[in-house]
Amino acid sequence: MNILEMDTVALTEDNAAIRIIDQTLLPGTLQTKLLCSQQQIFDAIFRLEVRGAPAIGVCAAYGVYLAARDIEIDSPHAFLNLLRQKADFLCSARPTAVNLAWAVRRMLDCAEKAFQKGVPEIRSTLLKEAKQIHAEDTAVCSAIGDFGLPLIRPNAGILTHCNAGQLATTKFGTALSPIYKAHQRGIPLRVYADETRPLLQGARLTATELCSAGVDTTLLCDNMVSYAMMHGLIDLVFTGCDRVAKNGDAANKIGTSGVAVLAHHYHIPFYICAPLSTIDPSCPDGAHIPIEQRDASEVTDLWYKQRMAPDGVSVLNPAFDVTDHSLITGIITEKGILYPPFSEHIAALFSKNQEG
Amino acid sequence: MNILEMDTVALTEDNAAIRIIDQTLLPGTLQTKLLCSQQQIFDAIFRLEVRGAPAIGVCAAYGVYLAARDIEIDSPHAFLNLLRQKADFLCSARPTAVNLAWAVRRMLDCAEKAFQKGVPEIRSTLLKEAKQIHAEDTAVCSAIGDFGLPLIRPNAGILTHCNAGQLATTKFGTALSPIYKAHQRGIPLRVYADETRPLLQGARLTATELCSAGVDTTLLCDNMVSYAMMHGLIDLVFTGCDRVAKNGDAANKIGTSGVAVLAHHYHIPFYICAPLSTIDPSCPDGAHIPIEQRDASEVTDLWYKQRMAPDGVSVLNPAFDVTDHSLITGIITEKGILYPPFSEHIAALFSKNQEG
Repeated sequence: MNILEMDTVALTEDNAAIRIIDQTLLPGTLQTKLLCSQQQIFDAIFRLEVRGAPAIGVCAAYGVYLAARDIEIDSPHAFLNLLRQKADFLCSARPTAVNLAWAVRRMLDCAEKAFQKGVPEIRSTLLKEAKQIHAEDTAVCSAIGDFGLPLIRPNAGILTHCNAGQLATTKFGTALSPIYKAHQRGIPLRVYADETRPLLQGARLTATELCSAGVDTTLLCDNMVSYAMMHGLIDLVFTGCDRVAKNGDAANKIGTSGVAVLAHHYHIPFYICAPLSTIDPSCPDGAHIPIEQRDASEVTDLWYKQRMAPDGVSVLNPAFDVTDHSLITGIITEKGILYPPFSEHIAALFSKNQEG
Repeated sequence: MNILEMDTVALTEDNAAIRIIDQTLLPGTLQTKLLCSQQQIFDAIFRLEVRGAPAIGVCAAYGVYLAARDIEIDSPHAFLNLLRQKADFLCSARPTAVNLAWAVRRMLDCAEKAFQKGVPEIRSTLLKEAKQIHAEDTAVCSAIGDFGLPLIRPNAGILTHCNAGQLATTKFGTALSPIYKAHQRGIPLRVYADETRPLLQGARLTATELCSAGVDTTLLCDNMVSYAMMHGLIDLVFTGCDRVAKNGDAANKIGTSGVAVLAHHYHIPFYICAPLSTIDPSCPDGAHIPIEQRDASEVTDLWYKQRMAPDGVSVLNPAFDVTDHSLITGIITEKGILYPPFSEHIAALFSKNQEG
């Protein structure tokens, strides 16, 4: 089954539930799961059954709609109060995922704007808004693919890190979007997927979705990137991104900055693929991006919870790192590719957006 | 139990068996094992119960002695023929480990030289030779430690990759030898151990032996090295080495070259710790060092044989990579530290050794 032909997250036809691909079962089993109650939606996000910031955002937006659907109260005031409670509950599933809070906030704003129109109208407005958030994510990913596509020469070897593919979004992904576009056009290419320790998103998710779509995919351990570059296997790097600072410094999954240093050393173009919403003009540089430190057991016990490190050893487990803007060839957005000097071009972009 | 106070491999007091630390049980269990028969010795090497080129060499040398001890033939000619067969059998346990063949060859040469003196004398000569090989390895590792020691400033953060510690040699190790010397002198230091996918020698072995010796040790995934360097945690890199070419290019465990590029980028000294026997003056450069490609399942199934990659994915699994000499600060040997230009200094060293 081609994962590209499925939805990572979508509302069912009767608008009564969310259907997700359960990512905790991959790569062994490709199976969808219905989420009906708020508790089920919370659990799916909390347990990483649905993951990837954009995918979580869309899931949460539908979650707020489903909450509104299930609240049987006629007073808009009481209705909204209860909706806010349920929205807070969803947000608490993964407090660090920016898109989750963002999507929930956007849904609540929408409900508040429709306040005067009564509960049934609020509900239908929320349904429209959630579908709009979903459609926007798909459109943004598709546009990133279109802008990245011309960078891919026939027979290119493309390295990617972690999972910034369809499974992290509603469709296409960010870093994998240009790759899918090229593959669909019959352009021959090879993708190299870093396994991405400690949580192995590259091995479990990226390799799985690329293989399911028929893309020539090679899995490698994170420490094999230098070897692959040295031996001419890599022509281009595409990664996703969690936050871009005003100067172009980019925070992404741990290991990204190392890949960027290696790409720079071996003179290989390194592109960040990021929706404009990822750019944070209030953040001056990478040093101002907080890095989440995660549990040691992710490193010591591997994915399958079997200990492979001695008792008493300390562990370093940052979830992200910051890639210095000097190592980034370009940032591929849904509006085009940003090139250095990033400070200047990001500032111009945001002043233009405010004008427009 | 401090692994430093144990022997990785040694002959028992009655000269009747080899006692090894069974490394396949680490980090869970620290346990020695007696090897009496040739089959047991073969299996121990084949199954990586004893590993690390120097440790394997010593084990095989004792293995040849034990074979000689057990051959009940009085004719030196027939004795030697049978000994050669048994030596070939040992060599076949790991055909790529240079020290294994080297140690076995040295033992056979010794037996052949003693040929005229009769079987009992051959046996006692072989016992002496095996003990000599063992003692030389310990002395070489100790000397590497002495030469590396002055590079370690108090409170230094030292990164190492894979296992080039006591468990890979008879004592002290190569890359870890300066660290143990510093620790024994009470110099405060922190060691960062890359886990070293796919076989996790850093997590399973390096972290284990350092922790058992009371060294402050932090385990990190291979893709966290850039983060650690960027955040000022690393002052110095020590790694072992499998082969050094004439120009200083150094083949070592996969991932080493990436660490070297990162060290270079972040202006951190990167030292290779290598006995002189590791330098191959017949090899012009790294491109002439063959790189072993290992089984895909090491990458796809992790250490505990549970699949975490999709069926049908290709896998890159080189066991080693080559670090360009331009990235190496120095090569620490038992005769002192070699600095660039390596071609010149290696040539001088070997012409001096031939003169001396």
